[in-house]
Amino acid sequence: MAEYKGLFHIDESAKWGLLLTNVENTLKSGEEMELAVVANAEAVRDFAQEGAIRERMSKLAAQGVSFSACRNALQGNNVDIPSLPDFVQIVPAGIVELIKLQTAGFCYIKP
Amino acid sequence: MAEYKGLFHIDESAKWGLLLTNVENTLKSGEEMELAVVANAEAVRDFAQEGAIRERMSKLAAQGVSFSACRNALQGNNVDIPSLPDFVQIVPAGIVELIKLQTAGFCYIKP
Amino acid sequence: MAEYKGLFHIDESAKWGLLLTNVENTLKSGEEMELAVVANAEAVRDFAQEGAIRERMSKLAAQGVSFSACRNALQGNNVDIPSLPDFVQIVPAGIVELIKLQTAGFCYIKP
Repeated sequence: MAEYKGLFHIDESAKWGLLLTNVENTLKSGEEMELAVVANAEAVRDFAQEGAIRERMSKLAAQGVSFSACRNALQGNNVDIPSLPDFVQIVPAGIVELIKLQTAGFCYIKP
Repeated sequence: MAEYKGLFHIDESAKWGLLLTNVENTLKSGEEMELAVVANAEAVRDFAQEGAIRERMSKLAAQGVSFSACRNALQGNNVDIPSLPDFVQIVPAGIVELIKLQTAGFCYIKP
Repeated sequence: MAEYKGLFHIDESAKWGLLLTNVENTLKSGEEMELAVVANAEAVRDFAQEGAIRERMSKLAAQGVSFSACRNALQGNNVDIPSLPDFVQIVPAGIVELIKLQTAGFCYIKP
């Protein structure tokens, strides 16, 4: 079990660049870290768009970072769920996931 | 006692719509949740304005969600405290309330 | 040891005024509080600029509030580290510091 657990919350698409830089720098720190990213609201749209942001997500997922998307938000933003990349986990409600992960010891960060 | 406790922080009026949608979806999740909303800075003004936002707050309050307003912020924003709806609790300092509730096991969320 | 511990995160320069007001009001509350501020991203630039914001930081530091700056962000924003005021502590990675302090019992606040 990792010594430290970090939980990143994003609900604005414009914050993806900053969030991914935060996660990349945290992984480079050399600390043993378990990291999770939970997206809700409009920020879930970016999972469905090819490009530099999704390539960075994919690389981080390959390094063990988890990415979750709120199903309510996917539906509200008309995102085609079957077309999402495999590294995205769908959770029933993003806020509930944020509360459950914090209850399990993850430390909340909102970039 | 609820299994999970969520604490929503708001300090920007523009975020009320998103925050209330978050709270509504969390209640619909079917998880046993105790939910609190703490407002400070300009976001306390919305407690004093009739309209759709306050109707949504009122419905959530009736379902057990607590709403607190920072007294410093109410005074700094010239809000007429006696005219606030009954469901709003006045706390001496919003940040202190956020720290006390987290210390009591509430999980912080900033929409 | 203080009964309550508050941890303020800032990554946008525009939020310094609000954050410092939050910290000032928290200190005035009369509660026994240990308070830390961690800055990353563009928000670290303000440590290098003379003016009203830095004077307020300096007064709070003299009252025991700690201020930390992310080294990654200082370098990324071309801030001249040796010229920073003495009250600023440099940490290797701001997000790691936020996770470590929360793990040590600090309650996260993002103004």
